[in-house]
Amino acid sequence: MSREVISHRDSHVYEFAPEMDPVYEAADGESLTIETIDSLNGAIRTDDDLLDAIPEEVNAATGPIAVEGASPGDVLTVEIEDVRVAEDRGRVLTAPGFGLLQDDPDIEHPATRITEVDAAGDVDAAGNDGTGGGRIEFEGVDVSIDPVIGTIGVATAEEPVSTLTPDDHGGNLDTTDMTTGTTAYFPVFQEGAMLAMGDSKAAMADGEMCGTGAEIATEIDVTLSVIESPEVPLDRPLVDTGDAVKAIASAETMEAAVELANRDVVRLLANEHGFSRTEAYLFSSLVGGLEVSQVVDPQVTARNAVPSEHLSVPF
Amino acid sequence: MSREVISHRDSHVYEFAPEMDPVYEAADGESLTIETIDSLNGAIRTDDDLLDAIPEEVNAATGPIAVEGASPGDVLTVEIEDVRVAEDRGRVLTAPGFGLLQDDPDIEHPATRITEVDAAGDVDAAGNDGTGGGRIEFEGVDVSIDPVIGTIGVATAEEPVSTLTPDDHGGNLDTTDMTTGTTAYFPVFQEGAMLAMGDSKAAMADGEMCGTGAEIATEIDVTLSVIESPEVPLDRPLVDTGDAVKAIASAETMEAAVELANRDVVRLLANEHGFSRTEAYLFSSLVGGLEVSQVVDPQVTARNAVPSEHLSVPF
Repeated sequence: MSREVISHRDSHVYEFAPEMDPVYEAADGESLTIETIDSLNGAIRTDDDLLDAIPEEVNAATGPIAVEGASPGDVLTVEIEDVRVAEDRGRVLTAPGFGLLQDDPDIEHPATRITEVDAAGDVDAAGNDGTGGGRIEFEGVDVSIDPVIGTIGVATAEEPVSTLTPDDHGGNLDTTDMTTGTTAYFPVFQEGAMLAMGDSKAAMADGEMCGTGAEIATEIDVTLSVIESPEVPLDRPLVDTGDAVKAIASAETMEAAVELANRDVVRLLANEHGFSRTEAYLFSSLVGGLEVSQVVDPQVTARNAVPSEHLSVPF
Repeated sequence: MSREVISHRDSHVYEFAPEMDPVYEAADGESLTIETIDSLNGAIRTDDDLLDAIPEEVNAATGPIAVEGASPGDVLTVEIEDVRVAEDRGRVLTAPGFGLLQDDPDIEHPATRITEVDAAGDVDAAGNDGTGGGRIEFEGVDVSIDPVIGTIGVATAEEPVSTLTPDDHGGNLDTTDMTTGTTAYFPVFQEGAMLAMGDSKAAMADGEMCGTGAEIATEIDVTLSVIESPEVPLDRPLVDTGDAVKAIASAETMEAAVELANRDVVRLLANEHGFSRTEAYLFSSLVGGLEVSQVVDPQVTARNAVPSEHLSVPF
């Protein structure tokens, strides 16, 4: 069976909402390729293209894709098999009123730097096969391509949420673990789940301090499946990177986000080991720990990681 | 030359202050072994020993050690060659009013769990040779020993600071990178620098969510040296783990701590690559990124890590 390709040219969204019209209905277990455009819709092509303000329509997310059989209370599983950069350049930039150091008088806002993919124009020759062989160039410095899906999520429970904002449905999580080899789990709030994704980067630091990574178009291979009535309820995104299981939480402050992520891990550890809640909390303070996804979006995002040796996904 | 041993029994402190009396004066380049007691001075020996409140005297730091030739404006280099656990058990615990989930009604405060070192009473047999071969046990679950020096710092610039609090002088940084193989750099604020350390853990999660790791006595092998008049000024601690160079910053909120750490990294990247400040900031958003040290002390601590491929220590 050939793999269906869903492109941003077919359908993309700028918000995750309770009601979404699917561009495609995937079977439970189906493998797809998803084509995404960069977060700024191709508007930034040279260092002279500056972003004076964050556009109203940003982080176009290809989709939504309905998954057969997904119902509220279920879990949607997204195996991310490969993320390939799909154009000859990325772009990293500042914009006024955006980013961790937005008030620094010695940092230009706006500013843009194009990050060319090595062997420009011939992406495959750059070894960009998802194994990390490719490179981009930033002002003469080579940086390994390590792609990240910045925005990925499902239909929300109650309110529409812009693709600029992360929350329990996923959305603009800007989490470096959303990459080749990771399996991501999302709570299903609506019939069909309604998965959409975009806003990929060729490379991004944990934190995404200036407000972007190297924003770039990508092709993403995924396999989608549904877990009905999971043993442990899932309130927000969870990833299994192969090395670790990580709860991902977004909130208005880092303090609130890490608290949510730690609560999720305490529940998972208690289930896994038969610990009391107190014991699970004590154990969470010994292994793995808190990580930063991003500190620049309308809500910030943090993770609590537990090595796979000590925690498995319970569904 | 035999290695001098400085023990907590010789001298320890509960605050870092501008004026400190050294227990020992080390030569520039001298190697020492430092013995530390656990953060609670051996008071917690069984699961029934509960901590009703954080004691006034906590995190005893062995020292201070003056280093010959260290003067304000210099940098103190601490090569951490080995951290060995030095007793048969650690302890992980909650205390009322302390820890990330201190308000959770289903988590007991106080609560204690002893974490026995495998092959109890015969620490060496547990393979505890700094290579990570040893294990502790938490409620039947084995956890790799991966020791951390929780509190490490130098005399402060202006005010005394409790060993419970981290700041620009170091102190209670609770940073998992403070371990075997790391070289740590501290700003020198006073003649002799006045290094002290303690509060080690056999294992600790990034974040130290419940307020402790597996608190334990340790023996720490270090070599101390002084960098006079560094090319780039150092405002707060920096570590080189071999894989990455990381700026460490403490502040009242996570947002403020990550901003400081990112500022330090921007300065270092600009110096390393000849980038403008804007370019250094953009580059910082592409590689490595923000990490969490701890979210539970009177100030929280964060790091900004840059892979060694892209940043070296400038002194």
